[in-house]
This record gives sequence, C-alpha cells and structure tokens, in this order.
Amino acid sequence: MEVSLLLDFYGELLRDKVLRAMEMYYNDDLSLSEIADDMGITRQGVRDLIKRAESNLYSYEEKLGLYKRFVFTQQGLESVKNGLADIQSLMDSNMQISKINNRLGELINLVDELIDEG
Amino acid sequence: MEVSLLLDFYGELLRDKVLRAMEMYYNDDLSLSEIADDMGITRQGVRDLIKRAESNLYSYEEKLGLYKRFVFTQQGLESVKNGLADIQSLMDSNMQISKINNRLGELINLVDELIDEG
Repeated sequence: MEVSLLLDFYGELLRDKVLRAMEMYYNDDLSLSEIADDMGITRQGVRDLIKRAESNLYSYEEKLGLYKRFVFTQQGLESVKNGLADIQSLMDSNMQISKINNRLGELINLVDELIDEG
Repeated sequence: MEVSLLLDFYGELLRDKVLRAMEMYYNDDLSLSEIADDMGITRQGVRDLIKRAESNLYSYEEKLGLYKRFVFTQQGLESVKNGLADIQSLMDSNMQISKINNRLGELINLVDELIDEG
C-alpha cells in the first residue's frame, strides 16, 4: 500500500508539522536534507519523524480500513456502472428481455452487498 | 450526531481502557458509578474520561468525515437499488422503453456521482 495514498486518507490525523514534512517528502518529492533545511531540524530528525508517521498511517489503516473500504466500494460501483451500460445497450439493440432481467437481478444483488458492507 | 454511532466508526482509535468505558456507558447503559467501580477510578474520573473521548470522536469525524461519507454512500446506494427495482417492474409490466431508458440514464449519473465522491 502506498504511503502517499494513506496520506490522502489519514493525513488530517497527523500533527500539522508532521503532515507538512510528509507532504514535502511524498507529494513534492523533496529530499530529507531539503526538508531538514525547511523545518530547521536535522536530516536524521526528519528521517525519524517520517518513519514514525508512516507507522502511524499504517496503524490507522489497520484500525479503520478506509483505504480498503474505498477500493471495495469503488470497484463495486464500477461494476454497477458497467452493468447499467450493458442494459442500456441491450435496450438499444436486440431487447433480449431475459438477459436484461438477469443483469438487473445481478446488479440488485451487487448493490445489496455494497450496502451491507457499508 | 450520536456518540454511539461515532464510537462504531472511530472506537478503534481510542485507547483500550477508554473504549471500554465508552462502551459501558453508551452501549451497555451503565451508570458513571458502575463504570467507576469496574475501572477502579472515581466517578469524576470516569466523567472526565468520557467527555475527553467524546470530544476526540467529534474531532475524528471533523477530520475524516467517515460517518458523513457513510450516510451519503448508503443513501446513494438505496436510490440505485430503488431505481433498479423500478426498471424491473417496468420490464415486467408495460415495457415503456423510453421510461426505462430515462431511469437507466439517471442511475448511471447517480453512480458516477457516488464514484466521484469516493
């Protein structure tokens, strides 16, 4: 799992100073030395701070699973969308009613699963 | 917003001891005195701990908005589900193709919104 993604989800839970260092490192691609200069601390200090923050981000994901849920829901919604497009093209073309009804039933089950997963 | 709901979403971020006290208070409906007895601290200590934990839960919601997102997605999915059921009954009964196509278009837009909101 990429740290920059976890940062999107849980960055707000980090202290301002730590979030800023993480953004410089992971989003702006600055070096440890550059961040150290900017923050007025040592290079080793930045390294420690980033390591601790990474470990906190992984721990948040372990506890809340926001990223995992996000991926699950997005994939489910993409499937729903594809299914709806299928039905649309079945309507436009040959209108095979049994196929349309099958796809509808599948989509309803999928949406039910998404609702249950929360 | 109900504290017990926030507890479902963010309880894992509280310290074990604090989570236990909150569960006794909000889920098991124990009194401050009963919780104090169980934890071996004063009634006032329990009260303070609960107040602090409540404030932390609200702060997590402000930062992460899990509950707000959850409600948004669930409502969206319920609408998708109702829309699919509408289409099913249109298929079963009078087969008004233009209505079916309209509903399909609406549902696709709705799913797109849900995907964009993440």
